[in-house]
Amino acid sequence: MAGDGSDQRALQYEQTLMYGRYTQELGVYAKEEAARLRESGQRRSVSDRSRTLDLLEYDKGRCAKCRRSGYPYVLEPPAQDFISVCTVRCQKFLISRVGEDWIFLILLGLLMALVSWVVDFCIAICLQAQKWMYGGLDSNVFLQYLAWVTYPVVLITFSAGFTQILAPQAVGSGIPEMKTILRGVVLKEYLTFKTFVAKVIGLTCALGSGMPLGKEGPFVHIASLCAALLSKFMSLFGGIYEEPGGIGIKDIGLIGMKNESRNIEMLAAACAVGVGCCFAAPIGGVLFSIEVTSTFFAVRNYWRGFFAATFSAFIFRVLAVWNRDEETITALFKTRFRLDFPFDLQELPAFAVIGIASGFGGALFVYLNRLIVQFIRKQKAINRFLMKKRLLYPALVTLLISTLTFPPGFGQFMAGKLTQKESLVTLLDNRTWAKQGIAEDFDYIGHSQAWKHPQLNVFVTLVLFIVMKFWMSALATTIPVPCGAFMPVFVIGAAFGRLVGESMAAWFPDGIHTDGTIYPIVPGGYAVVGAAALSGAVTHTVSTAVIVFELTGQISHILPVMIAVILANAVAQSLQPSLYDSIIRIKKLPYLPELGWGHHEKYNIRVEDIMVRDVRYITLNCCYRDLHNVLLTGHLKTLALVESAESMILLGSIERAQLQSLLSQQLGRSKRLEYIRERAAAEKKHLSVVSIPGSEDGSQRASQEVRFQISTEESSFSPTRPAPQKPLKPALKRPSVVERPTEIPTSPNDNSGIALKNLFCASPDTEGLEEPPPSLKSFFGDDGDVEDDMTIREISEWEEKQLDEQVNFNNCKIDPAPFQLVERTSLHKTHTIFSLLGLDHAYVTSIGRLIGVVSLKELRKAIEGSVTVKGVKVRPPLASFRDSGTSSSENEATELHKLWDRHKSMSLPREHTPSESDEKSQ
Amino acid sequence: MAGDGSDQRALQYEQTLMYGRYTQELGVYAKEEAARLRESGQRRSVSDRSRTLDLLEYDKGRCAKCRRSGYPYVLEPPAQDFISVCTVRCQKFLISRVGEDWIFLILLGLLMALVSWVVDFCIAICLQAQKWMYGGLDSNVFLQYLAWVTYPVVLITFSAGFTQILAPQAVGSGIPEMKTILRGVVLKEYLTFKTFVAKVIGLTCALGSGMPLGKEGPFVHIASLCAALLSKFMSLFGGIYEEPGGIGIKDIGLIGMKNESRNIEMLAAACAVGVGCCFAAPIGGVLFSIEVTSTFFAVRNYWRGFFAATFSAFIFRVLAVWNRDEETITALFKTRFRLDFPFDLQELPAFAVIGIASGFGGALFVYLNRLIVQFIRKQKAINRFLMKKRLLYPALVTLLISTLTFPPGFGQFMAGKLTQKESLVTLLDNRTWAKQGIAEDFDYIGHSQAWKHPQLNVFVTLVLFIVMKFWMSALATTIPVPCGAFMPVFVIGAAFGRLVGESMAAWFPDGIHTDGTIYPIVPGGYAVVGAAALSGAVTHTVSTAVIVFELTGQISHILPVMIAVILANAVAQSLQPSLYDSIIRIKKLPYLPELGWGHHEKYNIRVEDIMVRDVRYITLNCCYRDLHNVLLTGHLKTLALVESAESMILLGSIERAQLQSLLSQQLGRSKRLEYIRERAAAEKKHLSVVSIPGSEDGSQRASQEVRFQISTEESSFSPTRPAPQKPLKPALKRPSVVERPTEIPTSPNDNSGIALKNLFCASPDTEGLEEPPPSLKSFFGDDGDVEDDMTIREISEWEEKQLDEQVNFNNCKIDPAPFQLVERTSLHKTHTIFSLLGLDHAYVTSIGRLIGVVSLKELRKAIEGSVTVKGVKVRPPLASFRDSGTSSSENEATELHKLWDRHKSMSLPREHTPSESDEKSQ
Repeated sequence: MAGDGSDQRALQYEQTLMYGRYTQELGVYAKEEAARLRESGQRRSVSDRSRTLDLLEYDKGRCAKCRRSGYPYVLEPPAQDFISVCTVRCQKFLISRVGEDWIFLILLGLLMALVSWVVDFCIAICLQAQKWMYGGLDSNVFLQYLAWVTYPVVLITFSAGFTQILAPQAVGSGIPEMKTILRGVVLKEYLTFKTFVAKVIGLTCALGSGMPLGKEGPFVHIASLCAALLSKFMSLFGGIYEEPGGIGIKDIGLIGMKNESRNIEMLAAACAVGVGCCFAAPIGGVLFSIEVTSTFFAVRNYWRGFFAATFSAFIFRVLAVWNRDEETITALFKTRFRLDFPFDLQELPAFAVIGIASGFGGALFVYLNRLIVQFIRKQKAINRFLMKKRLLYPALVTLLISTLTFPPGFGQFMAGKLTQKESLVTLLDNRTWAKQGIAEDFDYIGHSQAWKHPQLNVFVTLVLFIVMKFWMSALATTIPVPCGAFMPVFVIGAAFGRLVGESMAAWFPDGIHTDGTIYPIVPGGYAVVGAAALSGAVTHTVSTAVIVFELTGQISHILPVMIAVILANAVAQSLQPSLYDSIIRIKKLPYLPELGWGHHEKYNIRVEDIMVRDVRYITLNCCYRDLHNVLLTGHLKTLALVESAESMILLGSIERAQLQSLLSQQLGRSKRLEYIRERAAAEKKHLSVVSIPGSEDGSQRASQEVRFQISTEESSFSPTRPAPQKPLKPALKRPSVVERPTEIPTSPNDNSGIALKNLFCASPDTEGLEEPPPSLKSFFGDDGDVEDDMTIREISEWEEKQLDEQVNFNNCKIDPAPFQLVERTSLHKTHTIFSLLGLDHAYVTSIGRLIGVVSLKELRKAIEGSVTVKGVKVRPPLASFRDSGTSSSENEATELHKLWDRHKSMSLPREHTPSESDEKSQ
Repeated sequence: MAGDGSDQRALQYEQTLMYGRYTQELGVYAKEEAARLRESGQRRSVSDRSRTLDLLEYDKGRCAKCRRSGYPYVLEPPAQDFISVCTVRCQKFLISRVGEDWIFLILLGLLMALVSWVVDFCIAICLQAQKWMYGGLDSNVFLQYLAWVTYPVVLITFSAGFTQILAPQAVGSGIPEMKTILRGVVLKEYLTFKTFVAKVIGLTCALGSGMPLGKEGPFVHIASLCAALLSKFMSLFGGIYEEPGGIGIKDIGLIGMKNESRNIEMLAAACAVGVGCCFAAPIGGVLFSIEVTSTFFAVRNYWRGFFAATFSAFIFRVLAVWNRDEETITALFKTRFRLDFPFDLQELPAFAVIGIASGFGGALFVYLNRLIVQFIRKQKAINRFLMKKRLLYPALVTLLISTLTFPPGFGQFMAGKLTQKESLVTLLDNRTWAKQGIAEDFDYIGHSQAWKHPQLNVFVTLVLFIVMKFWMSALATTIPVPCGAFMPVFVIGAAFGRLVGESMAAWFPDGIHTDGTIYPIVPGGYAVVGAAALSGAVTHTVSTAVIVFELTGQISHILPVMIAVILANAVAQSLQPSLYDSIIRIKKLPYLPELGWGHHEKYNIRVEDIMVRDVRYITLNCCYRDLHNVLLTGHLKTLALVESAESMILLGSIERAQLQSLLSQQLGRSKRLEYIRERAAAEKKHLSVVSIPGSEDGSQRASQEVRFQISTEESSFSPTRPAPQKPLKPALKRPSVVERPTEIPTSPNDNSGIALKNLFCASPDTEGLEEPPPSLKSFFGDDGDVEDDMTIREISEWEEKQLDEQVNFNNCKIDPAPFQLVERTSLHKTHTIFSLLGLDHAYVTSIGRLIGVVSLKELRKAIEGSVTVKGVKVRPPLASFRDSGTSSSENEATELHKLWDRHKSMSLPREHTPSESDEKSQ
């Protein structure tokens, strides 16, 4: 909630940029940071803290590639010389290759194939171990039960605990987060090495437990992590490669820009690799990742995904061949349906029924999943209890599910002893269970036997399997471990398809075809159709059809599959958001909802209907007092710069942070010291005070500042690092512009510096700290090495005088071309432009005159107002688990609330971020 | 070449629009129009002509859907009343359904499936007829030869002639045109019923001739035609549906906007349907159409393509079942490769070799195709001869090709007697020719026998087939008939793959696998790989892989196919543009080249490096003289409006046409008549002249004008129909604004009206007419029914006075938010923004100050400068065939040249359209 400001200050410089950026998770981050600082016990100034926040944010928040060009400046000169002199030649060749996309994609594919294979291998071992334990204890049912239940509980608990401790960001699927990141939003810590380790190990343990969890979603995240880390690693070479040429800051900016956009392209490719190497389905992977993560897809990036996913899938399957698991490269779940007559035309209604039923089922699954989260959250008692013992919830859920699947218990009625993979293999089998009986001539006697219960017929087993697995999967995916829902849903779909297929086979024992030849019905084909339809319905994609072909290695059922998937999508999309969109909304990630199917509303709403007419603006000839007032009352991250209040001609937009720094410069200590000096010189009484702005620590800080400044110049493509505008002096030459915290007035207890203090105390980065008043005090008390003999009244007078001066915008970075709309632009068009360009807000102008502003918030409200989406405004699932991060006390949250309330009562300016504004506190 | 102005006047109102529009083909159109006018022999005024051009263009150029809301105004009131009163209730239900997308898509799918099936059926009959004739005459080789050769020559000649006469736009593939149209460009006559008929019949005849031509590209065009016509048809209901509600102009605008964007979505879906129903490949169809036609793809439109293509493919195959051709729905070219061990890992290098070789082959094909066009064009003598006898070229080419394939002749060495389909079926066969011999146990003995020559072995036959078909296909696709190149390339690729496969089979007779089991090599699998790779290389797509799976019904070779396709693409893309891009450039369609693979250049180039600094602008307080001067010297379609020459603050942009109308209003006759009247009233000497602006004809014209005006208000989404801006008076209320030609000064021979005449004589719509001076004269002489007693000098003085007045922009439509860039925006980003938003130009500003402009032209130059594309700056293939359209004389072109030269010598303002500016005359 709090703390969004520390980066908003640096955000959104260029409005026409490709990808708008938001940081929603900063509140969490600020809390963690606060805890760390408190533990270290050092008395640091607020300025240090906020700068630390800034720096860390720049380091972590920026998607990894951007950092590349920052590296050269980090290297000490001798090391740099050594490297550049000695190994330039051999490195140059190496590096000139390393820089190319295809090398990167090959490495990414290779790495992910290895990860996928190793994870699969470990999961298989885990599952085997459970079976072995269970099998070894067959003398005693109770011991068997203990073994059967304890094993997954331990694994899931370990997975949940490990993930919580190492990187809470690794929890869940990852696809919603990647969708948000690909929209251009920076999510803290989502692409770090720690998250990678937590996700891989957590996922392996979670899947090794045998719970109905999937690996697809997490693999999308893992692949993105891989891509981010790999590019970070390769930037070690790349940085050296790009540096010796003696390129100036301008060129670094270019590289940064290149990296920024390339980074997004590579992440998109990585998502494809994730799905591709998970299922050995390159085409399906590319399509699925596009459907799931993109709104507008650049066809020129298509080949990247295909290239990397194909390579990855190839290596993944080659590893299986080398490991002697397979004779040659084949599909993961190879089917052997007959080719000459895959299905009869008259079977198509049955396939259509599967599609429609799957559509309802998919919507129900998404709804059920959300319902469970809501239920747990609403029960305050449960919630508080679970929050304290956060590993209890996973353990309880696992206990429940594994108890129910215990083979000698209820599990015997629902093929409980089969793993997910075994279930799928048996479900896709090309023989008919109902007619031929199972035991007779099966290859997988051990497995398929599980479906046949001596007392029950196979239909009952299937129905029980479907019903039980349905709620189990919906429940299991709420466990805070790295897990996806695709595979469980896929299996349920296959079981449903099989049920329909077996029914058809029982109904028409000799097939439907009437032309003499008997073509019996293939229930396995129905299973394929059902799997594609249900997973398509849950994820709102049609590419599950392609995944299914690649998984089974047969495309003979293409038309039934396509028909069923499209029908399922049509039904599901009209009932519920996709699972990933549902999670995005539950987690309150910054998003722009898709326009629904209803058309008319979007064209009837115009920008003038939704825009905010009361735009905060500053004029070119305003004085600092105006600036101060605007900053105190406004809440937008950027402010419009107009020519004059009369003409209202929009000249550009300025970030809030820029204005704050302008103000702090004007009212800052150095300015006052200068004033004192002048006064002293004029009065010829006092000694002139030498105005060295800081101690040794200060100069070190300044050098950091310079580096920081340079790094802001790296990528003019990113909103945080704008290119200097020609007509203005480049900000680089004046690092002091950013150094505002050191310039806060030194006398803390007088109300003269109140104008500034209001601003900075209220600025959200201090809100995140749990005890601002003492630290502020200590900060103000700390710094007493410069003589300041002004009285409170003098300062107050001086400040008043300063505030009346006219603002000098020369050192201020102005975005000269913020995106503009016209009053009559339709909602549909606005939505398209916002999602195409990844905008955060746009000004509404009328012949150059500013008349309003539309932000993502207004747009979202308008869309949700016109396109009703049901019941998604819920609190995040187990939000307390995730939000509190590494800190463990409940008090902190209370303190934060207090802080928040106090700030609110003081009516200080706050930064409202769009997606959080509807709920003020978490 | 000439005539671009008549629509540019109405173009590009809103700069932030989604799809920029260009009309390059207007020159051709203007010529046709001129010829028609000349033939009709009526003496019409220039104003009439240009207005006719306007109206026709609005009617035809706008993609069909936009016209919907115009219909109510065309219906006469009684008819409308009758309809709305009598059948409102039953229609309402019908129409409320008709309006929905899925009904439209189903109808489209159904229609296209029927078309595809009927075309296939007719082609099959044609081919059978040829075989029957050839077989029946086996007594005499000469007669056989005559029959073999005459049949295709007649068919191709008919096809060429028919297409030329009915709709020359139907010639060729259609994919390049669709790519251009989907970019937002309006191509004249490309989506009319005439073109549909010409394309379907021409295609059937062309393919029925047995030439190596394909049906894919034309089917993309046919599907788009279907979609356009269907939506036009459905708008008959829709128009009624939307009208009776009594919605005002604002709402009509909304509907128009909706239709405009929906239209593009539907056309994109139609492209998918085209490929889908051509090959019964829904998934491949969608992907191929996306890759081939889109730059940025909106994922939300994905389902449309899938839905329609699936339905279409389904119906297409169901028709085959109903016709008893097939037992059930299967793939078109079903293969029967073994499933358990499709290929060995060690065969992968061979697949990779196929991929790389196909890459080179694909590039060579594109190059060869262009070379042939270039060669024919360069040879002036040949060109002139062919231009006169335009059916000779198709006939000659057909004669050559069919002579070479004559089975008893050279055809016996290259399986000449097989049709394309038969070749493909035999090439994909799962038995090995080299080892087993062909004659032994083949199903298709008759067909596969063709590959085995008694004297030659099968390798020689295959090599000859590949080499001969290669150049034949490249040659045949230059014939001006509706034809594609996909299928021939596909067959050649399959033959090449087969060749490699047979070689491998001969080399490793017992397969490569060493683990005991013998898995012989499957040459058919190589053929599949080769087909996908070569067609992928020629079209620069990877989705040919999916098409190949759907065509063969087997996905077992997925990894080899993917690897080969990606390698082929990598090689081909680095050597040549895709076939479609090559045609786009050859035809000089307006395009924005893709950014190549080389990265650095694009980031080093900035907007400031490429922008035009000498921007033509007008100031808010300028006088008409400035306007006049700017119009005389400038050449851009829109002009920037700045606050003042000192501040240079960009307020918006105004279309040239708007300014012209402002000027003509100021200097126009009505104004002068008013002046005369005032003078008369003041002097009390003369009788006041009643200023009825026109005769009966004129009032009728005015009513037309009103309708036209209203239709411009329909869609503010389209550049031609901007929504009225609030601060300005809506232009609708003053239809006279557009009525400028009637207001041209009546005294023709004095030099007082020269200012206006200069403007309008030079305006490109009159350039397209072959004899402007006489018609101008006749126009000026025509209109003498109003008394005008001013002398030349008086008029001159009056005009000078008028020119010194300040411009009143109140009635002028101003685009208040033209797209703005910053100096430091990189080329890469500029390209992305231009292609995302379909921009035509963007202003470069620095804090609101206008400092430059970048148009598509500069951008293209910059991209082509940095990303070298080889040898594509050639003249269009058989341009003279297409350009001259229905007119037949060479003189016309000469006259146009003269006209052009004169205009140039007079240094009058001309509209330079980006893609034509590098070559002034065709």
